[in-house]
Amino acid sequence: MASKEIETLTQALARLPGLGPRSARRAVLHLVKKRETVLVPLLAALESVSDSLVTCTNCGNVDTVNPCGICADPRRDDRALCVVEDVADLWALDRSRLFPGRYHVLGGRLSALEGVRPEDLTIDSLVARVAGGGVDEVVLAMNATLEGQTTAHFIAERLEEHPVRVTRLAHGLPVGGELDYLDEGTLAQALRARRPVS
Amino acid sequence: MASKEIETLTQALARLPGLGPRSARRAVLHLVKKRETVLVPLLAALESVSDSLVTCTNCGNVDTVNPCGICADPRRDDRALCVVEDVADLWALDRSRLFPGRYHVLGGRLSALEGVRPEDLTIDSLVARVAGGGVDEVVLAMNATLEGQTTAHFIAERLEEHPVRVTRLAHGLPVGGELDYLDEGTLAQALRARRPVS
Repeated sequence: MASKEIETLTQALARLPGLGPRSARRAVLHLVKKRETVLVPLLAALESVSDSLVTCTNCGNVDTVNPCGICADPRRDDRALCVVEDVADLWALDRSRLFPGRYHVLGGRLSALEGVRPEDLTIDSLVARVAGGGVDEVVLAMNATLEGQTTAHFIAERLEEHPVRVTRLAHGLPVGGELDYLDEGTLAQALRARRPVS
Repeated sequence: MASKEIETLTQALARLPGLGPRSARRAVLHLVKKRETVLVPLLAALESVSDSLVTCTNCGNVDTVNPCGICADPRRDDRALCVVEDVADLWALDRSRLFPGRYHVLGGRLSALEGVRPEDLTIDSLVARVAGGGVDEVVLAMNATLEGQTTAHFIAERLEEHPVRVTRLAHGLPVGGELDYLDEGTLAQALRARRPVS
């Protein structure tokens, strides 16, 4: 029915997360009907990203410049280093604009099941960055999963010999969380880490 | 946080139906991380569609060739003409592969509220196609909405002077439809158009 080019575009769009075959078809139709206002800007944006996409050799962030915008920003605090599993985590944290320091992307988490070993992650380059000096605090911002926490423990041990403060994100109730909907693990963490009402 | 190029791409993707700002961000991250397998094919597919996109001057279908694949297909039956409101409807009908004839896209429906008048649609060119001869049946495949049905009536009247059979899609229970979930309008149509059990 539709031409080969349109079919190919539908399949390419359907590989994006959040779009299945049906919604990709709807998106293609939208693109095709709004050529000037939707298709052309999307094409231009994709092109410019595709042309300039690089992984920052310093922290592992994906950006259009190397070193990335965060590593190159002089207003950032060199003394704090936030370690994340993935670029997605870096972006999510940085959107909150609450962390003033630099980042380090591990490229995954240790996993016996998936066969991810320490040498598969950028742990050595993290230790090298810390050993290079100038870092006071390393924030381990791993996911609150078993594998994330195992990775955090492993890195904390590797950093023991260096004179840095190693911290981790607080665990507890998420904002808006209702007690009777939360799992026991979260409740246990929240209770264990309870703090005095100031 | 993310570079300007990446922000622009996120905004361009967020304009697709089915993607909001959050899911567009997830899609961009996916594109950025899977450059070779997702971004590059999508870019190529968009480019080839963008370069070759045309509206068929014969039927109003959007395709990469003019006349479109359906109008150019010699196996199609010239004697049956299916009139639809929109390209989306044409694609949906043609996916079912049940209609062997040609199509005609109106480009909308008559609407007093939205100020769509007969001359805003391709009704004249439809009448001209029918007047040109060779068409035995015109199937009015408008949406089962008030405006769709008004449009169908209007077209049926315009075609009265021509020796063609004018039909419309059947209205009734959708496949899988349960009676107690269906609206009264549908039930009334289904009852009124009831057929003998063969």
